[in-house]
Amino acid sequence: MKIERDFHMTKGDGETSYAGNSRIQRRAIRLTVPMVEKAIRELSMDLHPQSMVIADLGCSSGPNTLLFISTAIAAICENLANTTIESPMDAQFFLNDLPGNDFNQIFQSLEQFEQSIAQNCSHKGLQPPPHYIVGVPGSFYTRLFPCNSVHLFHSSFSLMWLSQVPEHLDGNMNEGNIHIGETTPLSVAKLYQDQFEKDFSRFLRMRCKELVPGGHMVLTVLGRKSNDMFHAGGMTTAFELLSKALHALVAKGNVEKRELDSFNVPIYLPSAHELRQLVQKNELLDIGDIHIISTSWNPIDDDSGLAVDGAAAAQAAGKSISATLRAVMESLIVSHFRESIVDELFAVFAHNITNHIENEIEKSSLTVISLSLQARQ
Amino acid sequence: MKIERDFHMTKGDGETSYAGNSRIQRRAIRLTVPMVEKAIRELSMDLHPQSMVIADLGCSSGPNTLLFISTAIAAICENLANTTIESPMDAQFFLNDLPGNDFNQIFQSLEQFEQSIAQNCSHKGLQPPPHYIVGVPGSFYTRLFPCNSVHLFHSSFSLMWLSQVPEHLDGNMNEGNIHIGETTPLSVAKLYQDQFEKDFSRFLRMRCKELVPGGHMVLTVLGRKSNDMFHAGGMTTAFELLSKALHALVAKGNVEKRELDSFNVPIYLPSAHELRQLVQKNELLDIGDIHIISTSWNPIDDDSGLAVDGAAAAQAAGKSISATLRAVMESLIVSHFRESIVDELFAVFAHNITNHIENEIEKSSLTVISLSLQARQ
Repeated sequence: MKIERDFHMTKGDGETSYAGNSRIQRRAIRLTVPMVEKAIRELSMDLHPQSMVIADLGCSSGPNTLLFISTAIAAICENLANTTIESPMDAQFFLNDLPGNDFNQIFQSLEQFEQSIAQNCSHKGLQPPPHYIVGVPGSFYTRLFPCNSVHLFHSSFSLMWLSQVPEHLDGNMNEGNIHIGETTPLSVAKLYQDQFEKDFSRFLRMRCKELVPGGHMVLTVLGRKSNDMFHAGGMTTAFELLSKALHALVAKGNVEKRELDSFNVPIYLPSAHELRQLVQKNELLDIGDIHIISTSWNPIDDDSGLAVDGAAAAQAAGKSISATLRAVMESLIVSHFRESIVDELFAVFAHNITNHIENEIEKSSLTVISLSLQARQ
Repeated sequence: MKIERDFHMTKGDGETSYAGNSRIQRRAIRLTVPMVEKAIRELSMDLHPQSMVIADLGCSSGPNTLLFISTAIAAICENLANTTIESPMDAQFFLNDLPGNDFNQIFQSLEQFEQSIAQNCSHKGLQPPPHYIVGVPGSFYTRLFPCNSVHLFHSSFSLMWLSQVPEHLDGNMNEGNIHIGETTPLSVAKLYQDQFEKDFSRFLRMRCKELVPGGHMVLTVLGRKSNDMFHAGGMTTAFELLSKALHALVAKGNVEKRELDSFNVPIYLPSAHELRQLVQKNELLDIGDIHIISTSWNPIDDDSGLAVDGAAAAQAAGKSISATLRAVMESLIVSHFRESIVDELFAVFAHNITNHIENEIEKSSLTVISLSLQARQ
């Protein structure tokens, strides 16, 4: 599979779609609203551009895609209401994702989105600023914009995805695992780490060229709390349980062992320490804030973080977590294995999660790390 | 049908697709290459922007969509090769069409496009400038870009499409016709003309806000040669023959007469005189050039304009012209009538064209009008 070309969230709005299974990602976007508001406030005050250019990198397609834009429009609105600037600012939004993303779906949902924006603003007695939304196909590990052309970059739940399976990670070097599992050799974990360093550093370099001096970035990734790559909990546990589900399919003869051995998920969950170091190495960026948040890995837990208990709840959580990962990983699974195993794989995976939840002593939680960065002037 | 939302060229790359039936539109883009080259040369010399912003309005999806971009990149390339500017310019391309356009298809074809651009340039010993391609969904009768943000607008074979069926043209006011036909009342023809004036003037007003001072536009429309709206030949003849095909379906009971009477194609074929007057009324634009070109309405005539003769040729031409109009009009026909009539309608239409070609004294030709305009500084 060529990730740049073929990787995408599950399309459409059906039962297994990303649109219908992306509540955790939604929660992450909500968590960074204050950071986005602050960045827009500072940009307006410091640079007062006639038109603010804002790009969302890894926008996907579904209800979350436009959530960031509505947050930003609300922030610009409030800002304009609180200032006495005579010529109102307008905003141009660039929605970026890989070319396999369903941009048609986004574009066709804009009419309804504009109606809801107008309604929301008028409820507050405000007028939305003139704004223009466009789509940018391409990997954010390449250049996407002209030099000095963007005021604010936003990216949520995307930058932990690597540009490729780690270089030099071939064959059965990671035998029996699909990510950094308990039996993964340290050398393989290092390959993952190196690939992330290379990708994230390149990302920062590219964006620094595209940002105007003084421009901002708000980046949110799924990360890990501890420095230990092997016992990171959260997503790492999820990958261990997915790996176990694949082992079950190998035992039944539905997947070959060498298929499992050669499958490595191109994702890396960095620690806040690693992220900080990579940003500091870049030398063109100042770190404003780093927030580390723990959130339930169960999409049906409510946004307060309160988890629901009981056997039925554990079963519902298994289904829901499995559906969330399926919506994200289906294109990878189909491409490496085949479509016919997908239903069974995620059914077994859901069962594994339910078991895990019923037996766990400490609740599993995801670590979400948000960075607020500013390009030096 | 809401044109802004639902109108689109026939998608995909099948037998009846726009991608496979758009040779005439391709010819029109080729005809204006010198105008585009001149605009880019002048923009580079006069404004020497660090990044040139170029927008193609009504880009459709198919082989023609990227033809304009490759023309523009070649022009920038040649330009850079002939100057001694040290910092090379980059270019940002905005591809615009209605939200129903197949942007996914365009985005997925970019990888291959970039390879061919790189090859073409290296054949000439040149390097393509850094360039970035994005998609802009929306009607060009609304604002699409921030103020003062675009250097060059291009639009080919799109601006003769009205924003809607002419206002106040209701019921059976245009009985028996689907456009300005021989039995169309003058009052109805005037409604068409008024709608075009309103739409085209609004288009110019919007673009003048979006263009940087000194910015250029190269606009190509399907128009008419004579001032007479009723006997304009070319496309008007095609609509008369399509109307005749609908009458045949009414006679067979496959279409109701009131359905035919209430169907009015939202298109207007302006004369060069009308276009010039509307531009002059705008007062913010200077006219550089107006070119009026006659080209065969038969897509399989070669680009030299030489037509092929004979009965077999007339039959092939009928099929080909019918396929061209079908690829453009299918969404309108399906929306007003229904899908089940499309095959039969365009088969009868092809037959009508073949008959017409066999009996015609003078060859039918399309009138293509290109305008080169510049925003005053």
